[in-house]
Amino acid sequence: MNINWNYPTAMRNGEGRVNEIAAICKEFGMTTPLLVTDPGLAALDMTKNILACCKKEGIHAALFSDIKPNPTGTNVESGIQAYLEGKHDGVIALGGGSGLDAGKAIAVAANQTCSLWDLEDVGDNWLNADPEKIPPIVAIPTTAGTGSEVGRASVIVNEAEEKKAIIFHPKMLPGCVILDAELTTGLPASLTAATGMDALSHSLEAFCSPVYHPMAEGIAIEGIRLVKEYLPTAVKEGSNIEARRQMLVASTMGATAFQRGLGAMHALAHPLGAIYDAHHGMLNAILMPYVLVANRSAIEPQIERLARYLSLPSDFDHFLQWVLDLREEIGIHENLSMIGINEERVGELGEMAVADPSASTNPILHSANDYSQIVTNAIRGEFG
Amino acid sequence: MNINWNYPTAMRNGEGRVNEIAAICKEFGMTTPLLVTDPGLAALDMTKNILACCKKEGIHAALFSDIKPNPTGTNVESGIQAYLEGKHDGVIALGGGSGLDAGKAIAVAANQTCSLWDLEDVGDNWLNADPEKIPPIVAIPTTAGTGSEVGRASVIVNEAEEKKAIIFHPKMLPGCVILDAELTTGLPASLTAATGMDALSHSLEAFCSPVYHPMAEGIAIEGIRLVKEYLPTAVKEGSNIEARRQMLVASTMGATAFQRGLGAMHALAHPLGAIYDAHHGMLNAILMPYVLVANRSAIEPQIERLARYLSLPSDFDHFLQWVLDLREEIGIHENLSMIGINEERVGELGEMAVADPSASTNPILHSANDYSQIVTNAIRGEFG
Repeated sequence: MNINWNYPTAMRNGEGRVNEIAAICKEFGMTTPLLVTDPGLAALDMTKNILACCKKEGIHAALFSDIKPNPTGTNVESGIQAYLEGKHDGVIALGGGSGLDAGKAIAVAANQTCSLWDLEDVGDNWLNADPEKIPPIVAIPTTAGTGSEVGRASVIVNEAEEKKAIIFHPKMLPGCVILDAELTTGLPASLTAATGMDALSHSLEAFCSPVYHPMAEGIAIEGIRLVKEYLPTAVKEGSNIEARRQMLVASTMGATAFQRGLGAMHALAHPLGAIYDAHHGMLNAILMPYVLVANRSAIEPQIERLARYLSLPSDFDHFLQWVLDLREEIGIHENLSMIGINEERVGELGEMAVADPSASTNPILHSANDYSQIVTNAIRGEFG
Repeated sequence: MNINWNYPTAMRNGEGRVNEIAAICKEFGMTTPLLVTDPGLAALDMTKNILACCKKEGIHAALFSDIKPNPTGTNVESGIQAYLEGKHDGVIALGGGSGLDAGKAIAVAANQTCSLWDLEDVGDNWLNADPEKIPPIVAIPTTAGTGSEVGRASVIVNEAEEKKAIIFHPKMLPGCVILDAELTTGLPASLTAATGMDALSHSLEAFCSPVYHPMAEGIAIEGIRLVKEYLPTAVKEGSNIEARRQMLVASTMGATAFQRGLGAMHALAHPLGAIYDAHHGMLNAILMPYVLVANRSAIEPQIERLARYLSLPSDFDHFLQWVLDLREEIGIHENLSMIGINEERVGELGEMAVADPSASTNPILHSANDYSQIVTNAIRGEFG
């Protein structure tokens, strides 16, 4: 079932549509794109197929895959070097969050005189980039979670500062996205679960954000419903193409919705990811119920409305129970200690969370102490 | 409360923001825009204010307002002549559907070698236009209903063929939209009601469309909720700025959602509007319950889900009753005979409805006879 959508960017949805890559490159005037992905994906047939599709149509794509699961500034620098040496004229970003974020960051910074960190999402920093010099980006997600394919930012680890920095520019929104669910059927159950919960965390935090943005709110609501309907099946039957397709769309919806703002899950997941190099989606999944409880006083009416839409009894407790049941059903750990995170740095984590941009759109402006308490609860598995 | 959104296009929401018009013109490189609006608005202070704002900043805007409530091909031709004679470099489209649709149509066709009708939304007709020659468009809605400010099409009456033609091009989507609720507070209650029901019809038909487009579905759901919460207040207290703002946003959501497709309300409202020159929103409002009943067998599960979200008892009958009650509360006529439409041309109307592009995304592919029956019911006020 092939269908094209035109917001938030040009979207080509349908199984097998990755084979349209050469035509898309031509549409965007790319003749020598740099294909950016992670080392795991680089070794797979899907990557070879994309390169072959390009070659067949006279598009000379080269591969760059020297990136970490949480891509670093150093990774982006190496990518820029490859981009410039290969005289590339665009980026094909392929992957989960790693390949997509790295590809977008390489594209935005490659031809600039400013550094990558000059484009950190603070104030009007994005004006430091010359938009005319940002090459076209085509994004091909291989997981359903990050939604980076429809986002205007990349999360890149600043190693010197031991933090995850958000690099932002409006033109980091890919000009075209291919949503081809066949690329996601090989994802193991555990990663399907963690990335799917990432998509849920995006829609859920956007839904709870106090920012006025009804369009994002509607997208979030339906995105949450898709996760509820299809994530368990996608985890249990990886080859179920219907479930994979719906999760891929739910993921784009989460990322589109969160232009309304994220919240405490991400304010904590960012520093936890930077310090412990843990999987971002897994962190959000574990943190989710602890954050919901911490935000409860500010979000009960919205959560009741959401619960009604999800055909749950319309109260906060039943919604929370659904989250806990879903986590259990798809094999998400109950607390952070189960993934090796201890209480040693909770004070510091609280400070980092309160300084994270996502904290500013959490429905409650928690203090650093509050954040330390939330992460302590999440480590111990206590609901306070 | 000022806020900017970036989808489906750049949106500036906030009271008084119409005063940013000159800055926006400069951002889009416009120095001599043509301000297109209808004769009624042209006489109002708000239009004079826009021209004055431009002049103060060295933007030489000229006014064109020779358009009918349902703008015609002749109106667009006159506008193009004014555009070319004035050597304009962009369009400010101001108004309800008339000013917005006329402005967008003038912009898309002004510099082309093909005619306006060569851009009718049939097949790939839009490829007849040279996209480089379409000047920038800034849209300023003064009613909350059409949503044309976020649409990629205009409805223009083809007088020779006595039909409403849809003119489409992706670049008809305005580059910037100002949502300034203060411009809508002067709208009389009857027009507030009719245009608000137009917004509802967009979201409702999009919600019922069989096309796969979850993002549009979510936008439609929340758009319908906003109408339910705020339309009665907007009608009864025209100066209630909160209600006006929410309706203005609900209107953009309806039009964004209906990229998923419209249905039988519009398939009938288009020919009825062309033949009887009746108000488009009023036609949709009157037709709504008759079409819901005609589509019932195909839409019950969706309507139940929608009803739940709206805090109504979750069945079709209660939703239908809500529509009937809303119509009555805001003073919409119960049937088409009350606005002077009789049964003389129902056969022809059925044929025209089945040929209307909106018919193809109605949840049931009604025959011409079916459509004649629906319009007969709507004239008589019978639910069959």
